[in-house]
Amino acid sequence: MADKIFRVNMSDLTTRVEDVPNEWAGLGGRGLTSNVVAAEVEPTCHPLGKNNKLVIAPGMLSGTPAANSGRLSCGAKSPLTGTIKESNSGGSSAQMLAKLGVKAIIIEGMPQDDKWYSLQLNADGVTINEETELIGKGNYEVIQTLNARLGEKFGVITIGPAGEMKMAAANISIKDPGSRIRSSGRGGLGAVMGSKKIKFIALEPTDNKVDIAKPEEFKAANRAFAKALVDNPISQALGQYGTNVLVNIINEAGALPTRNFTSGQFDGHEEISGETMYDTIVAREGKPKHNCHAGCVINCSQIYNDKDNKYKTSGFEYESIWALGAGCCVDNLDQIAEADYILDDLGLDTIETSVAFGVAMEGGVLDFGDGAGVIRILQEDIAKGTPLGRIIGGGAGNVGKAFGVTRVPVVKNQAIPAYDPRAIKGIGITYATSTQGADHTMGYTIATNILGVGGNVDPLSKEGQVELSRNLQIATAAIDSTGMCLFIAFAALDDETCLPALIDMLNARFDIALTGDDVNNLGMSILKTERAFNMAAGFTSKDDRLPEFFNEEPIAPHNVVWDMDDKIIDSFWDF
Amino acid sequence: MADKIFRVNMSDLTTRVEDVPNEWAGLGGRGLTSNVVAAEVEPTCHPLGKNNKLVIAPGMLSGTPAANSGRLSCGAKSPLTGTIKESNSGGSSAQMLAKLGVKAIIIEGMPQDDKWYSLQLNADGVTINEETELIGKGNYEVIQTLNARLGEKFGVITIGPAGEMKMAAANISIKDPGSRIRSSGRGGLGAVMGSKKIKFIALEPTDNKVDIAKPEEFKAANRAFAKALVDNPISQALGQYGTNVLVNIINEAGALPTRNFTSGQFDGHEEISGETMYDTIVAREGKPKHNCHAGCVINCSQIYNDKDNKYKTSGFEYESIWALGAGCCVDNLDQIAEADYILDDLGLDTIETSVAFGVAMEGGVLDFGDGAGVIRILQEDIAKGTPLGRIIGGGAGNVGKAFGVTRVPVVKNQAIPAYDPRAIKGIGITYATSTQGADHTMGYTIATNILGVGGNVDPLSKEGQVELSRNLQIATAAIDSTGMCLFIAFAALDDETCLPALIDMLNARFDIALTGDDVNNLGMSILKTERAFNMAAGFTSKDDRLPEFFNEEPIAPHNVVWDMDDKIIDSFWDF
Repeated sequence: MADKIFRVNMSDLTTRVEDVPNEWAGLGGRGLTSNVVAAEVEPTCHPLGKNNKLVIAPGMLSGTPAANSGRLSCGAKSPLTGTIKESNSGGSSAQMLAKLGVKAIIIEGMPQDDKWYSLQLNADGVTINEETELIGKGNYEVIQTLNARLGEKFGVITIGPAGEMKMAAANISIKDPGSRIRSSGRGGLGAVMGSKKIKFIALEPTDNKVDIAKPEEFKAANRAFAKALVDNPISQALGQYGTNVLVNIINEAGALPTRNFTSGQFDGHEEISGETMYDTIVAREGKPKHNCHAGCVINCSQIYNDKDNKYKTSGFEYESIWALGAGCCVDNLDQIAEADYILDDLGLDTIETSVAFGVAMEGGVLDFGDGAGVIRILQEDIAKGTPLGRIIGGGAGNVGKAFGVTRVPVVKNQAIPAYDPRAIKGIGITYATSTQGADHTMGYTIATNILGVGGNVDPLSKEGQVELSRNLQIATAAIDSTGMCLFIAFAALDDETCLPALIDMLNARFDIALTGDDVNNLGMSILKTERAFNMAAGFTSKDDRLPEFFNEEPIAPHNVVWDMDDKIIDSFWDF
Repeated sequence: MADKIFRVNMSDLTTRVEDVPNEWAGLGGRGLTSNVVAAEVEPTCHPLGKNNKLVIAPGMLSGTPAANSGRLSCGAKSPLTGTIKESNSGGSSAQMLAKLGVKAIIIEGMPQDDKWYSLQLNADGVTINEETELIGKGNYEVIQTLNARLGEKFGVITIGPAGEMKMAAANISIKDPGSRIRSSGRGGLGAVMGSKKIKFIALEPTDNKVDIAKPEEFKAANRAFAKALVDNPISQALGQYGTNVLVNIINEAGALPTRNFTSGQFDGHEEISGETMYDTIVAREGKPKHNCHAGCVINCSQIYNDKDNKYKTSGFEYESIWALGAGCCVDNLDQIAEADYILDDLGLDTIETSVAFGVAMEGGVLDFGDGAGVIRILQEDIAKGTPLGRIIGGGAGNVGKAFGVTRVPVVKNQAIPAYDPRAIKGIGITYATSTQGADHTMGYTIATNILGVGGNVDPLSKEGQVELSRNLQIATAAIDSTGMCLFIAFAALDDETCLPALIDMLNARFDIALTGDDVNNLGMSILKTERAFNMAAGFTSKDDRLPEFFNEEPIAPHNVVWDMDDKIIDSFWDF
């Protein structure tokens, strides 16, 4: 059974199932969302208007038994950055959509009335229903209510109150196997879903299986692939401490942005480290290892319990913990966990919102270190949509404008995440040149700059950074198209059996004959498609720059500034 | 005595008086501010950071007896638009600066501490003083206090609380001969002055006179020039009803943007018209005619009194009255006058802020027509810098983002003023192509599209609009360099004695031999300099567009959309 496009028109409330055009047949995940957005969305349109489209696509291997293949891509023109945007997430929906025969959901138009709707999707198509009960409700309640209303086996893609209020930091949340939340965090795609007046998309469970052309070859390749992942030492560290293993590592490297990017080290790093988190989780009978989708062999997620040993949050990531922790000088892991829970429930990107809090602290809205103040503003302002809540929910750039702050760590108006580009120059190239605004996942040079994966490139040198970022951005665009978790990259870079096994799986799945060069070409093609969209929207190389304070303010302990020439940055695109 | 550059460095609190470089010798007003900004300001700098500069320059004829030559130009990179910006204003300062031998004040850098300062300027230079008493005070109190502290003859250039709070709609206010306020309104230049921590600039009175090379020729030319102004019927209408004569005219043309740009006519137009205003002023013993600087022969300003015949506001302009009136559906002239007074006192651009209120009304912050609500928010929120106040003080685009509104009438993030571009297509070309964001004064096609001045171009046709806007934008850039009020344009377009007399005055003042072509070339050169700055800042032709709702929503009564092709818009720059 060939996969189909499930198209939803919210202007006239119609849906249809379409054959996949030839030019999209070989695509999935980010490769597909970016190509659909580039083909069908006017680059200069208002991101929250009827001319934007929200595209949701599983990856090429989603729904198969391939290890770690459960990422779901969401794409649109971003209300935060104005660029094309793809944000991907774990959870169960990618695998369910693939099994339901969905190549992509394309949501277009906008209702003429003020009603809210939900979508219900099965293999035959999509039904649009009016929704009233869950409007204004948090993501946790949405999932619990839908578990009761529809059954626990349903998949859920939902927005919280932030998405309903069209905040530019609003994310799209995906139910995971434990009925918790994973997020397509970056770029405000929850606001796009909110602008289309869709509260949630329910996916009917299915017993269908994804077709695999050559099942035996697939099985053998998957075995080799999974072994490469499991054997990798970084996979193992991620399994033990989660991504938060990085707090001490990045602090040691002098690149942990602290107090709104005024220092590279945080006195309170031990209190918020992965090691402390692990001990806390174990002591409180949480789960240090946990998967966000079936088939994950790395298990970087966790269940973090409160002092009463009750569930507090999950998917508690380094970037979130850094942002509220070092970024805002909050050295209390329980406060950060509480904020993380509320952010997930409201449906807000933890990175964007927490960096926004750092800028707000600099602007005098609250004191650095005031974790209780952060929680209060989340509950009293953002949840209720007060003016202060809307300022902070609008992201870090927005907070800078409101309070006249000039030290605003954003590129293309998206908050810079957890690695200071002055002290790790490769990631600065990624922030500057990414088609999506500042985003570490677009070309994670930390692997090579800090972790020694895929070679060694001195983080403080200017040498080799552009090539490193370029190679990783190209590879990442391809990986984001497979449905694979980006954390396969550590094994892919260091274990020569990993990438061939991944290509073997793709070939066995579709009975094709991709080579490594084909995969590389796919990545390049995606980047160029995304950049062409941005250029047509009015972006230029002048947007591929870090904020000027990085050039002017040296950061301790290395006392270095961002000193990459504009021409060198622009040479990124020489391919 | 040759004019000098008065340079103030707020980083090290030093000042110096410099000779004028040759390349700036023939410039004044906008021609000078834009050339200084283009030469000395990095186009990609943060507009509120230490790398931006604030440039203040009288025009080429300022300080002479030339009629209507009292405009002062302020320039910088704009925190509202990100473009180069020149905003000019009446008041007494241009003439005083010219007499003090000031070619331009260039303010650069930023204090290292949190102190506030004032500048005091005389013919010998500038003194920097710490200021405490007037910090947080409104513009009216600043002027009254300085009148008492320094004497009524001092000139004052000041910012209100909005500029101190670095709101993007903050203006720079200039004391007029009656100790009232004129404003360099657009583009947030008050925030730039606030970022440099300068509350006000006091100008010492002088008995100096501006050198005139050929006094007799100058006198004769000025006589002819003033006669052309006085004889012009539009000058006369402006003298009687003020600029607000336009409410009924533009309403009749179906181009009075109403209810946040959803209609072209306002039911309450009579209540807010120039005719009603005139009758009210006369009945309350105000002044229907009033000049904003010595030597004005048009007298479009007025003193508007309240119901107790006490001063309420002055310089009560059509664009301000339209914006709060039709734009926000407030049909009560006293409420609009009260708001105008508060806006002047806070130091906020009436156009930007009032259009922002219209967007806020659409976003549900208050009801359309709620003039009392506007006044309350001005007093309780903007004056106090609450989060809501900061959202609205950040301008219309900012309000749209905060409340998820998509009908946001801005170009390059600056609010579109009082003429709907769907029904008057020439002004749409000006809004789209202006180097400074949407601004009617940059190329006032209303003259020809509606008032029949300088020919006739059908406002609803696409024909001839680009040429009209181009010719007017070029002429305006030149006029803005002379220190002349833009209202000389009506006579200049229709009375063949006017423009030659103006050129004769320039030639007699400097003993030069400018021709009409030279003036035209000056205008073209200024536009190209400004555009080059913007391109270097990252702007492209994609920024020369109106918001998409103008293309999609027909406006009553003509039921027309904005339908100018992008290529036609871009042909504006073919010169």
